[in-house]
Amino acid sequence: MTAPKTFVAELGVIGGRLVSRPRWDVDADGRILRAGASAEFEAPPAGATRDFGRALVVPGFVNAHSHAFQRAIRGATHRRLAARDDFWSWRTAMYERANTLDPDGLFAITRVAFREMLRAGFTTVGEFHYVHHQPDGRAYDDANELSWQVVRAAQDVGIRLVLLEVFYQRAGAGREALAEQRRFCDRDVEAYLARVEALRAAGVSVGLAPHSVRAVARPDLEQLAAYGARERLPMHAHVSEQRRENDECLAEHGCSPTALLGECGFFGRPRGFTAVHAIATDADDRARLRGQTVCACPTTEADLGDGLVEASELRSDGVALAVGSDSNAIIDPIQEVRLLEMGERLRSRRRICLAGDERGLGASLLEIGTVAGARSLGLDHVGDLVVGNAFDAAVIDRRHPLFAEVTDDAILDALLTCATASVVSHVVVGGVERTP
Amino acid sequence: MTAPKTFVAELGVIGGRLVSRPRWDVDADGRILRAGASAEFEAPPAGATRDFGRALVVPGFVNAHSHAFQRAIRGATHRRLAARDDFWSWRTAMYERANTLDPDGLFAITRVAFREMLRAGFTTVGEFHYVHHQPDGRAYDDANELSWQVVRAAQDVGIRLVLLEVFYQRAGAGREALAEQRRFCDRDVEAYLARVEALRAAGVSVGLAPHSVRAVARPDLEQLAAYGARERLPMHAHVSEQRRENDECLAEHGCSPTALLGECGFFGRPRGFTAVHAIATDADDRARLRGQTVCACPTTEADLGDGLVEASELRSDGVALAVGSDSNAIIDPIQEVRLLEMGERLRSRRRICLAGDERGLGASLLEIGTVAGARSLGLDHVGDLVVGNAFDAAVIDRRHPLFAEVTDDAILDALLTCATASVVSHVVVGGVERTP
Repeated sequence: MTAPKTFVAELGVIGGRLVSRPRWDVDADGRILRAGASAEFEAPPAGATRDFGRALVVPGFVNAHSHAFQRAIRGATHRRLAARDDFWSWRTAMYERANTLDPDGLFAITRVAFREMLRAGFTTVGEFHYVHHQPDGRAYDDANELSWQVVRAAQDVGIRLVLLEVFYQRAGAGREALAEQRRFCDRDVEAYLARVEALRAAGVSVGLAPHSVRAVARPDLEQLAAYGARERLPMHAHVSEQRRENDECLAEHGCSPTALLGECGFFGRPRGFTAVHAIATDADDRARLRGQTVCACPTTEADLGDGLVEASELRSDGVALAVGSDSNAIIDPIQEVRLLEMGERLRSRRRICLAGDERGLGASLLEIGTVAGARSLGLDHVGDLVVGNAFDAAVIDRRHPLFAEVTDDAILDALLTCATASVVSHVVVGGVERTP
Repeated sequence: MTAPKTFVAELGVIGGRLVSRPRWDVDADGRILRAGASAEFEAPPAGATRDFGRALVVPGFVNAHSHAFQRAIRGATHRRLAARDDFWSWRTAMYERANTLDPDGLFAITRVAFREMLRAGFTTVGEFHYVHHQPDGRAYDDANELSWQVVRAAQDVGIRLVLLEVFYQRAGAGREALAEQRRFCDRDVEAYLARVEALRAAGVSVGLAPHSVRAVARPDLEQLAAYGARERLPMHAHVSEQRRENDECLAEHGCSPTALLGECGFFGRPRGFTAVHAIATDADDRARLRGQTVCACPTTEADLGDGLVEASELRSDGVALAVGSDSNAIIDPIQEVRLLEMGERLRSRRRICLAGDERGLGASLLEIGTVAGARSLGLDHVGDLVVGNAFDAAVIDRRHPLFAEVTDDAILDALLTCATASVVSHVVVGGVERTP
């Protein structure tokens, strides 16, 4: 809760369109009461006015996939770790760090990551949270101890959180969880759902997240999909990040991970499911995902040698695209959406690949980085600065040297295709400035 | 010229290795007299001491390929320009801007680009300069009018310049220059070399740059290679950025662009020639380029849909790698070297691809961004902060939130694989602070 406020600036984006001298009147709950060009408003601003001056105000970016604790190994895995360095040798190093965390340590590193997200212009994070229990797998006195630490870190820095609570059970088909995976695992779906219910009862915005078809058996997937559908919760899973997952799924289930998830009931609701990565997918998988979301994590997917997602084909097939910072080696929404477009250019040897409509490429990339992520997290009042929505904004420094010589009509294209998060000067979450 | 000075900081890189509390004693000409850990020095610093505090001092980055004026169209080409948007439709838009420039305009935009380079940590630029004459092709009263504007812009902001003076003659095999290419063209090689001689006589550091095998006929290539070899000048050319160039070269000369340049005599001296891009090259081309340099421009090569250079294969075949900001849509040495590594990871589905030796990936990427670029520009006293070299440095803010939780032993890897130019706080060129 805060006092009603009016926000103005030189430039802003409303409904994906650039507006000169925009103004937003925001109520005490941080909801937008009125939005438009200042000139259209009859009355003077009521209450306090915050003028961002020569700035461009865009919707706050939405980070649809994060593992905050992995921020702890930034830079520490870019050396030879194994005879063959790839995703799997990286995972070994990452697990080592995951197993050193105690509740205070998890809170501290999550806070570092969330603060950096705010600084980078992310105002919402979907935290795909899987470090649940003590290193030996026993529950803490409160089985949600570590989930509460994530919630507390988000509250402490003021970022909007959707807790994508992960269910994890096994190392793979017929294989028990490894020693280093024990703390990720709940006893069974019932124990997991009891934790979910406790979090929801406390008002935490929760999504269901079976980790992957590798880590969860089919009957459990079916049970989770049924609960998610009944409760209308957003559902996320890692899907086909590495070909090995596809090979193993084919051997166990005779089909692709996407096909299995479809059979288990995850795709019943439009935009109800988000497939994270979805790199090793084919045309049949894309058809199954129609109406759902794929969350791409381009900086991480390059870092881990995962490959390029087929973004243009997914869009053509009716799949929405969102982005996430995933491993948090890099925390920068602008780089994520830019690399998504640039990956398409490298694949097709053409330019201007993800422009959605006449509003152009910048507006389209902005939508991927904002609205699409919000929908994937089940948030319908976030992602665009229109009436009724939360005033979650990233304020861009129009005077940054990076924008010298860039005209207003190219500013959105330049922001999303040439800049980095360093141009973000302030963020606002629910009407409250949260600039760290 | 400046007073002798001593530079110290918490961390520095000397000879590709991290040094605690480094110290450099620099003479009045900006040359390093002594370099090492402060603890190794017996005498106290002579003259003024500049302490960069909790910073990491690395060699200034070297931008081995830039078209400064293209900074004017940053953000302006990321919209639909043609039925098929690719390199060629971008080039049309770029030519339009090139033809609006007068001497003052060229100076102004070059200054903007060079200032941004300094801010990003580039202390040297190889400016591949091809806008020479009036829009209708007639020479200015001084035929080097526009080259002087580039020199003046570099002097004004204090960046070290190697002027890669371009020779341009034709639109393609048997095709006269297009109207919009006229101002790039000299009457003949003699007229061009007269300009080069005038620049050299005035003390400008010059390299020879036949634009491409597309734009220069074979006899002229031979004449330029002979002059460059005799005068021991660095030589640069665009090579195989797009497959179309290869197809046209095959039709005209019966061989690849690289093979043609070899036959014309460009590869006589180790590291005497730099092939810019070299994307559409094969194993035979790589063998021909052994001992030379390929300048990759990953942000531009993604933007223009050129494709990924085969960096690992080039290195295995004994070709050095350097980087350039090329179109200057993005000016960021850290992104250039990171995307070079990340491109390899995407191609190979592995990690840690360009680590050269036991010093590790960060040191190797730093070498690509510094020493290799300096050698490609014919500068043997630039690129590393060792005794006898110029003190050209980029000062990295170790306290930047991006480096929170990153330990010293991972700092170089984190800098080159996770950061952006936003962590550069100061630059020094030849012992003089040039932070814009």
